[in-house]
Amino acid sequence: MSLQSAFERYLPLIEAELRQALATPPPPLAPFYGMVRYHLGWVDEGFSPIEAQGGKRLRPLLCLLACEAAGGDPKQALPAAAAVELVHNFSLVHDDIEDASPFRRHRPAVWKVWGVPQAINVGDGLFALAHLALQGLAEQGVSASRALAAFEVFDRACLALTEGQYLDLSFEERLDVTVEEYLQMIRGKTATLFAASAHLGALVASDDPELIAHYHSFGENLGLAFQIVDDILGIWGEESVTGKPVADDIRQKKKSLPIIYALRQKAKGQGLGEIYSKDVLTDEDVRRAMAILDEVGARQYTERLARDYHRRALAELEATGLENEAQADLRGLAAFLIERAY
Amino acid sequence: MSLQSAFERYLPLIEAELRQALATPPPPLAPFYGMVRYHLGWVDEGFSPIEAQGGKRLRPLLCLLACEAAGGDPKQALPAAAAVELVHNFSLVHDDIEDASPFRRHRPAVWKVWGVPQAINVGDGLFALAHLALQGLAEQGVSASRALAAFEVFDRACLALTEGQYLDLSFEERLDVTVEEYLQMIRGKTATLFAASAHLGALVASDDPELIAHYHSFGENLGLAFQIVDDILGIWGEESVTGKPVADDIRQKKKSLPIIYALRQKAKGQGLGEIYSKDVLTDEDVRRAMAILDEVGARQYTERLARDYHRRALAELEATGLENEAQADLRGLAAFLIERAY
Repeated sequence: MSLQSAFERYLPLIEAELRQALATPPPPLAPFYGMVRYHLGWVDEGFSPIEAQGGKRLRPLLCLLACEAAGGDPKQALPAAAAVELVHNFSLVHDDIEDASPFRRHRPAVWKVWGVPQAINVGDGLFALAHLALQGLAEQGVSASRALAAFEVFDRACLALTEGQYLDLSFEERLDVTVEEYLQMIRGKTATLFAASAHLGALVASDDPELIAHYHSFGENLGLAFQIVDDILGIWGEESVTGKPVADDIRQKKKSLPIIYALRQKAKGQGLGEIYSKDVLTDEDVRRAMAILDEVGARQYTERLARDYHRRALAELEATGLENEAQADLRGLAAFLIERAY
Repeated sequence: MSLQSAFERYLPLIEAELRQALATPPPPLAPFYGMVRYHLGWVDEGFSPIEAQGGKRLRPLLCLLACEAAGGDPKQALPAAAAVELVHNFSLVHDDIEDASPFRRHRPAVWKVWGVPQAINVGDGLFALAHLALQGLAEQGVSASRALAAFEVFDRACLALTEGQYLDLSFEERLDVTVEEYLQMIRGKTATLFAASAHLGALVASDDPELIAHYHSFGENLGLAFQIVDDILGIWGEESVTGKPVADDIRQKKKSLPIIYALRQKAKGQGLGEIYSKDVLTDEDVRRAMAILDEVGARQYTERLARDYHRRALAELEATGLENEAQADLRGLAAFLIERAY
């Protein structure tokens, strides 16, 4: 209820900030920016305006709410909110190429429409645009030293994204990935940008390193829980919720947490390993894999871990000692992201 | 002579700064950083140290010399020097994928060794590392507001790189590219990073916007001249100089400046257009193309343009009103880069 009002309050501001970060370019470059806008869900393949689903804008919302909760003016954090959303989208454009995923948000991925070379370059453009968006902090009255600190938080998150992606790509060839390695991977690939989003919001609001650290850890634990819930949905999520058929992650032989957990369970794990060693999985393979996950309690294990990170995230919020509407919205956002799985 | 001493003075500092920007990572990420180090010429495919040609480090040298010439302490500019070199290398890793170039500096390109997905991600890592290197300015005693200005200059150059690359990729399908469009492309793809290199050096040294603008324009004009000279060498350069056979750019049907100029010369241009419309060029096609370039005076035209930008670059240096050893070295660097063509 309250979260809904936060969405309604902030989403138009986030969209406006994003559009400002992508000001109209001079004519010969228009198609380059057109491809960027296409990915963000604003235009179709011919660059005509459309109303598409451009993503949930979770990271910018987290940034603005953390700023408000920590006592700041969320408008001041808008450049950071735009920056985290743009860099998230940079990583999606490149991930889609790297994973050969033909679709993104029910539309053809940038590389499917314009080819790999242009798509790599569109991602690079988004990376640069994200940084330029962050420059807006100074115009919002944020001091130069705080803005510079924001760049460091931001670029450490960018580096962590690529480290996580390296691990993810390297897992493709392995059946012996440990849960610890998996957690390190999603910490880089997902949790660090959530952490940076909350961190940047708090940094705009406050000079208190301890307070900022709590919001950072809130974001990180929330990001871990979010990714683990995604892993649960990738296997057991109904098509009506995920937009993908049940067990889609298994069919694609993804090494998500339930799979990694199951692969490490002696005999049963070996059975799953044999299935995952095949080039293409049949429906029967998928059914057998699902049965093995059931037998080893992979879903319960994974749900327990998600709940654990959710709890840790809430403890970090609690530790700030602050109580206000935005703080309640952050709890609501966490509940919203976690409860998708149940 | 003097330039040689500048190379000897600065190159070890630049290498040390680059190595510091790539500190040893924890074990599971070692191969990710190994791929980055491979691209920089420090290790082989098995990540054992080697002595390879890692690039000429022109941009960092330009940055440090501009800083010294403008009255600053070049050591303070080392983080910017490392940043421009790292972002240059980011663009090379991605360009090699986008152009399907199998070799870089006489070694297999990153994508040839580890595949396209990892190579895209290695480039992204270099992009983030470049930004983190720039954070070093604050540790060098550069004020937060100046460091923040440095980030803006840097990210505008990054965006210009991707805009230039977009134009370059879009030219592949066209025979009607104008000289103006070509110049806009190399301004983004090459000249802006030269401009940013000199700009950042001067920015560390000085608060005077006019002085900084002269170094910026010096770098930009030098970058334009440098790229145009590269175009000349790509067609008429001897293998002993370029490491590639004569007319290699024609064989690869590159749309470099001499070609674009010739394509726009009525009847002769049409003949060249017919050759460039073929899928693969025979030796006879290459000979005919070279003859057409001769007939329309493409080399003279291109050399004139290179000399013109060289002259403009020197005029910008002159306009600073400064005279010192580093200033002389900048002129020496310009002469070194331009005279390769003659």
